[in-house]
Amino acid sequence: MHAPGDVEVVDRPDPQLVAPTDAVIRLSATCICGSDLWPWRGIEEVTDPSPMGHEYVGVVEQVGDEVTKVKVGDFVVGSFFASDNTCEICQAGYQSRCIHAEPMGAEGTQAELARVPMADGTLVATPAMPEPDLVPSLMAASDVLGTGWFGANAAEVGPGKTVAVVGDGAVGLLAVLASREMGAERIIIFSRHADRQRLAKEYGATDIVTERGDDGVARIKERTGGYGAHSVVEAVGTQESMMQAIRSTRPGGHVGYVGVAHGVELPGDELFFSGVHLHGGPAPVRRFLPQLIDLIWNRRIDPGKVFDLELPLAQAAEGYRAMDERRAIKTLLWP
Amino acid sequence: MHAPGDVEVVDRPDPQLVAPTDAVIRLSATCICGSDLWPWRGIEEVTDPSPMGHEYVGVVEQVGDEVTKVKVGDFVVGSFFASDNTCEICQAGYQSRCIHAEPMGAEGTQAELARVPMADGTLVATPAMPEPDLVPSLMAASDVLGTGWFGANAAEVGPGKTVAVVGDGAVGLLAVLASREMGAERIIIFSRHADRQRLAKEYGATDIVTERGDDGVARIKERTGGYGAHSVVEAVGTQESMMQAIRSTRPGGHVGYVGVAHGVELPGDELFFSGVHLHGGPAPVRRFLPQLIDLIWNRRIDPGKVFDLELPLAQAAEGYRAMDERRAIKTLLWP
Repeated sequence: MHAPGDVEVVDRPDPQLVAPTDAVIRLSATCICGSDLWPWRGIEEVTDPSPMGHEYVGVVEQVGDEVTKVKVGDFVVGSFFASDNTCEICQAGYQSRCIHAEPMGAEGTQAELARVPMADGTLVATPAMPEPDLVPSLMAASDVLGTGWFGANAAEVGPGKTVAVVGDGAVGLLAVLASREMGAERIIIFSRHADRQRLAKEYGATDIVTERGDDGVARIKERTGGYGAHSVVEAVGTQESMMQAIRSTRPGGHVGYVGVAHGVELPGDELFFSGVHLHGGPAPVRRFLPQLIDLIWNRRIDPGKVFDLELPLAQAAEGYRAMDERRAIKTLLWP
Repeated sequence: MHAPGDVEVVDRPDPQLVAPTDAVIRLSATCICGSDLWPWRGIEEVTDPSPMGHEYVGVVEQVGDEVTKVKVGDFVVGSFFASDNTCEICQAGYQSRCIHAEPMGAEGTQAELARVPMADGTLVATPAMPEPDLVPSLMAASDVLGTGWFGANAAEVGPGKTVAVVGDGAVGLLAVLASREMGAERIIIFSRHADRQRLAKEYGATDIVTERGDDGVARIKERTGGYGAHSVVEAVGTQESMMQAIRSTRPGGHVGYVGVAHGVELPGDELFFSGVHLHGGPAPVRRFLPQLIDLIWNRRIDPGKVFDLELPLAQAAEGYRAMDERRAIKTLLWP
């Protein structure tokens, strides 16, 4: 990305092993994230030309001398933070905040090849080479599915609970799918777009609310006996969406927030008297990858449906435009 | 309270039963809360003269026709929010946010008599009339102990964990006691006052940190292998104390915040990347009262020690002054 709205696919030097714990993978698929739209839209500054992308699945081409678990030829899924998976933070399930965490976006995975630090900690291999039709779903596990899953987990979704989801992008839609898998009784999504409403229902949404802000909150209260939802997943990252999420939650309920916060300031007194639990942040996708790969491998879930546009990597710019203009929920790029 | 710094004990009409679910109690003891200092110091506005106090223990004098559990002559402990204890929010343990919650501060419990709404839901009777030396500890259960306990509970304190406590007032000190009872391995309190440090150690603190802000955070990191504490209790309610609490917590760790927020604005991006759990608010003391009364009754805990000044109710103004000037941690008033 050269500047907001200006993405170009260019030749760059092939990534090399740097540390003995690195691997280099050949990407089978890559994709564009909702968070890539922040710089595209100029909301995040773009100073220098930046390699883009932090989601990836692919086949291991090279491994460093100290890599013992991942092997050349493995099909692997990783997350947007490389992690050692051994420190106390990783062991507690917060690999995205590993004390050695490295963001994968620095070198960019919207590419043919990518270097993966701490390969043994970061990558999870599939049982065998996947059938081609499973690749989009495995691709989704790398970020949007893992993030939606964490949002539902952070919101303590479970049997008998009413869940509300703020945001009908890929993450919100997959938070609906996660909520269904976690046994939620009722799943309400805020959505105004017919195509997204349709997919939300397919993923298990029981109710659609088209209002936003305080009107949206009022609809949730009406549908929950005046109490508010037990669990609310926030998957946008704006001031309005955060307040909508907090206000839709009953006292003692749980907000799981996974939309990358932009310009959000939470008023301490309102938060205090809300009595909600608040948890979120960059999803520790690595924690969930073995379970998610298993569900996908056994065709229990089909998160790949969020990719409603597939393009060759060379047409990445069109992929950005389609997502920005909401012509596509999420764009898959074939290298 | 007529105005900031101006408290006077005056004759007022005796409280009467209003609803058939009310009780009237004769207070055995009452006390001054750290939160009563906000209006005393003029940080909260005092418009009209206001009855003060929301903490109480006493003997039931009258009950309404629909009161069935609480009996005349019972010695009872209640919390600062009256609650029905039957709605979904109460049943989930959040009685301070009961859909019928009524703040006890409106009519004031720094008095000889007090009306208690929803007596069956609000009040918990002791097994018999307490020995006089137990009254201060039972008094503490009404708010500061229950609030410190909730702070530790919200911070998910447990065996093997390192806890940090921000605030060395009565609530912070009792969060230390709660953490010990919950099996914490290490309990660090931020404190600069020798008398409070002494009581903190008696209650189970293993470490004292005298630095504040980022220096204080650095001390916590040093003592926890660079990770931060697992659980942090915030018991002040200022911007500095909230940020100190969040920054002292490891990613994936838990902040339990019980200091009533004043002028706090939480930066969404920092909170997002912190990866902490945040939970708190007005403590649902009622949830914990049966357990706390049992611990006090059996002399397992001695929370009454936070009252280092006891005065007749008539000298309430001196009690406020002593707490404001930090000559006393907490003032007990004998009606």
